[in-house]
Amino acid sequence: MDRRVRIDLAYDGTSFSGWQVQPGRPTVQGALEEALGRIHGAARLPVRGAGRTDAGVHARGQVADAAVPDRLDDGELARGLRALVPKGVSVLGVAPVPASFHARRCATAKTYAYLVDRSAAGDPFLARFALHAPARVDHAAIDAALATLPGRRDFRGFCASASPVEDFVRDLRLAERVALSERLDLYRFSANGFLMHMVRILVGTLLEVGRGRFGPERLAEVLISGERARAGPTAPPHGLSLERVDYPAEVGGPSGGEGALW
Amino acid sequence: MDRRVRIDLAYDGTSFSGWQVQPGRPTVQGALEEALGRIHGAARLPVRGAGRTDAGVHARGQVADAAVPDRLDDGELARGLRALVPKGVSVLGVAPVPASFHARRCATAKTYAYLVDRSAAGDPFLARFALHAPARVDHAAIDAALATLPGRRDFRGFCASASPVEDFVRDLRLAERVALSERLDLYRFSANGFLMHMVRILVGTLLEVGRGRFGPERLAEVLISGERARAGPTAPPHGLSLERVDYPAEVGGPSGGEGALW
Repeated sequence: MDRRVRIDLAYDGTSFSGWQVQPGRPTVQGALEEALGRIHGAARLPVRGAGRTDAGVHARGQVADAAVPDRLDDGELARGLRALVPKGVSVLGVAPVPASFHARRCATAKTYAYLVDRSAAGDPFLARFALHAPARVDHAAIDAALATLPGRRDFRGFCASASPVEDFVRDLRLAERVALSERLDLYRFSANGFLMHMVRILVGTLLEVGRGRFGPERLAEVLISGERARAGPTAPPHGLSLERVDYPAEVGGPSGGEGALW
Repeated sequence: MDRRVRIDLAYDGTSFSGWQVQPGRPTVQGALEEALGRIHGAARLPVRGAGRTDAGVHARGQVADAAVPDRLDDGELARGLRALVPKGVSVLGVAPVPASFHARRCATAKTYAYLVDRSAAGDPFLARFALHAPARVDHAAIDAALATLPGRRDFRGFCASASPVEDFVRDLRLAERVALSERLDLYRFSANGFLMHMVRILVGTLLEVGRGRFGPERLAEVLISGERARAGPTAPPHGLSLERVDYPAEVGGPSGGEGALW
């Protein structure tokens, strides 16, 4: 007999080619499928993830689900996975979910965070997790631009042109900047879903606003025109982290670690 | 003409064989001496550090000093060093000091911090900078033990037996535990100087107290007996960081980054 479990994960994405399985490359999904397979004497057990993080993108609150033989309980499964997943991946927890649970389809919201280290020297403790961008920025202009973003809108102007999706409408519920310290900015976005590279293009455009290359109205212009070319560059992946995935209370509520630093 | 400068540094010690130059090994002092040399057209320019951090130990507020040709000003020197030091080393600042300045001898206090991640899964964002020790610990016992430490005392019981020093008396001014989050403990120690492995043995002993293997009076017993064998194991280097070095105001005051997370 099989049962379905939800697996909450955090990872340092630096040495992974992203979440999604790709032949011959280290991916988080692949590592998890192999570890689950080893525990259950199979080659691999398929796993579905809430968010397909890009190569180099991190997670503090990724959620996956899998159908597993009911031989082991959740605690045994968590301990087994912790012993088998590669360095850089943390299994935050394993919990039972209804057979109908689907990590991506059941998610009601996802939250991504992008960290920018503006110190001149760059904090070596954050080098893997923050974009080092020591420019002086106009925070008032950035905050004004952020305020124009939330809402149910067509975000095609903030979507990678390679994306195959057809529906570009997403409900962006939160777009905020948090000053973690004098030199450390966290950009946080919550939505019912995100387009390919959407957060990275949003951040890349906001940083151009901060440097005065674009006015704060530029983000609204990109939204209205839908032109990717009017937005800023795609910010590099290593500043980005999937912080949290929300679910209805009956399938366990939001993901998230046990006391993150930010 | 030469002038003396003070160089404030932070580094991720993971890939260095410690601060002090060793032939054929990557050290922070060696990297800095080579970078300074390249800037000034010499093979190396000698550099003196405030604290000789061990292999794998980090720094957020190391201080070094060097005599440099006065051709370049402090800003040019800082920019040159930032371009030349290896990944993982950050030059926080360069500032003029009197010719008599000596990074180690002029220091009035040093502060070290040791980070312990007690989460079951381990936070992958902290894996390089925190000891992952998911045991349940008795914080009241640890805090009681910490309270017995400060003072001007003979710390030979907390010194590596390989140490060549003869004077084991140090003035420990601060020994505290800060709960950064529910699962993240920071142990912080300030003294006029530290013995070899002193902080790591203190933390190793405190963790034994936390797990109930030693009573909280054990640290005072080690102090009185001076027996290294009665203390706990040396905690691993990667949880440790040299946070700050204090100097009299006339040579620039304390070191420290531009807004650290802890």
